[in-house]
Amino acid sequence: MTENISAALETALAYHRAWTSHDFEQAMTYVAEDIVCQAPAGRLDGAEAFRGFMGPFVQILTNSNLIAAFGDAKTAVLMYDADTVPVTDAPGAECITVRDGKISHMRIIFDRLPFDAARRAATT
Amino acid sequence: MTENISAALETALAYHRAWTSHDFEQAMTYVAEDIVCQAPAGRLDGAEAFRGFMGPFVQILTNSNLIAAFGDAKTAVLMYDADTVPVTDAPGAECITVRDGKISHMRIIFDRLPFDAARRAATT
Repeated sequence: MTENISAALETALAYHRAWTSHDFEQAMTYVAEDIVCQAPAGRLDGAEAFRGFMGPFVQILTNSNLIAAFGDAKTAVLMYDADTVPVTDAPGAECITVRDGKISHMRIIFDRLPFDAARRAATT
Repeated sequence: MTENISAALETALAYHRAWTSHDFEQAMTYVAEDIVCQAPAGRLDGAEAFRGFMGPFVQILTNSNLIAAFGDAKTAVLMYDADTVPVTDAPGAECITVRDGKISHMRIIFDRLPFDAARRAATT
């Protein structure tokens, strides 16, 4: 057997293409049941917790472009632009670990401040 | 002439090693005079503007570990943990473009919300 030297990158890109196309159910097929996601607000354990985090974000996404994507057999890093209903220019970065073709770990970084400001503005 | 296929990654890592070792002047030797940096608060033009952004951050940095680093001849992406005096667990991600051995463009993503919260707490 030969190992695909960019298997994690391919999985990360397939996941990315799906959710940025608003096909969140397709995106979830690349997510392991026992995913651990380290998000700005804290740690999410399992696919359902991850769904509760990313699902609402996909719903407010209006546009996204990939800035950079690198990876190897086990790990990939993606950076992307994202425009959303409450916040335009909300870029994100993900470091993804893939096990058996599914995302088992994700570290995701984005700036929550403009989302917090939009929320505050909407409730005052 | 042969092109170094990971030249940008090497520059990005040298810059990273310098500032995370608190040697900010050494880090600045890898930064182009006409750097454009897209930071969460907006665009910074030129090395002096960049110095005014990153210098204070380096001063409050207490610890940092590289999470992932990938790149090629022109572009590199780094993700890292960072602990700071006001905020522990303040990870960042950078997409760096290198021209003639210096960083000419940087897209940097981090979560400003905990820094904003710490600032608010300190002033009330």
